[in-house]
Amino acid sequence: MIALVERIRAEGINLGDGILKVDSIINHQLDPGLMLGMGAAFTQCFAGARIDRILTAEISGIAPALMTGIEMNVPVVYARKRKPITMSGPVFLETAPSHTKGGETLLLVSAEFIHAGENILIIDDFLATGKTLLALARIVASAGANLVGVGVIVEKTFEGGRAAVQERFDIPIHALATISSMEGDSIVVS
Amino acid sequence: MIALVERIRAEGINLGDGILKVDSIINHQLDPGLMLGMGAAFTQCFAGARIDRILTAEISGIAPALMTGIEMNVPVVYARKRKPITMSGPVFLETAPSHTKGGETLLLVSAEFIHAGENILIIDDFLATGKTLLALARIVASAGANLVGVGVIVEKTFEGGRAAVQERFDIPIHALATISSMEGDSIVVS
Repeated sequence: MIALVERIRAEGINLGDGILKVDSIINHQLDPGLMLGMGAAFTQCFAGARIDRILTAEISGIAPALMTGIEMNVPVVYARKRKPITMSGPVFLETAPSHTKGGETLLLVSAEFIHAGENILIIDDFLATGKTLLALARIVASAGANLVGVGVIVEKTFEGGRAAVQERFDIPIHALATISSMEGDSIVVS
Repeated sequence: MIALVERIRAEGINLGDGILKVDSIINHQLDPGLMLGMGAAFTQCFAGARIDRILTAEISGIAPALMTGIEMNVPVVYARKRKPITMSGPVFLETAPSHTKGGETLLLVSAEFIHAGENILIIDDFLATGKTLLALARIVASAGANLVGVGVIVEKTFEGGRAAVQERFDIPIHALATISSMEGDSIVVS
């Protein structure tokens, strides 16, 4: 997605240790034109698939997942990372080591909102090591639903997440921007 | 907003102590048609105002704020509740007592993403006691920006938040659904 790649080139900051600061377009501020473009781009990537529901993880996955849900006209569910007081009844629960926060991240999805036999598309902001996406994919599998694909805004290819996900789940993965190197201060993105 | 009121009547659950469970439409699952309607409704509510930016708070404010930002074609900023590793530089910081989680909630907005003189619209999911909205409004004031209004999906009138906000900020407040009572198991919504 050219507009996204250009924005990352212009505004992305390499904070070292593979940490990419893209607060101005993904993690803190959202640009309406860019977000609409992401929804359209993900929809095009998965145009051949029947999709019943989109699954993402709070917090930064919500915006791209919602834009895709709007474009595809399907409901969006965001996994919660802490149990809200309003979450009652059975939940699917997985954990993933947190890449940027340290420790373990909890992912909770109410059994009300994901059902056996549904075709699920996972959308998230980053594909790095793939640990969060794998945890979401395990929730899909636990529910007896079918994972039809994964779409991410940014893939960092040097962290090996794509292979880690595809080793376990035979599904297409699409990234709207691909970062192949973050050596020194540079960001190599296409 | 009739479609929203009908969904709250059909799916909202009164958990007691003024806690409304609307996970199926606001806090966990998002319905594309309903979300589009919210964006359009907020845009209509504030049709006369020049708005440069929408401010909300993660997590459940993101979806309605984004839909409104899309409809108005203005950027959306969501206050973070925990400092992400990518947040560097000066931030506006306020705290609000958490209604549903207990304790204090931190609200952080990078000084990069809110500027003096801008006209800011705050969008959030709930108006209850108004504490979170007041914290967001204080961030707007600290930045030297102008608060032009507040839009919420659901107002619980019996918690007095509207008066608390308007006592401090002379601005219009619009709610897409109004809950006037949650006695026993009932939810009185219009």
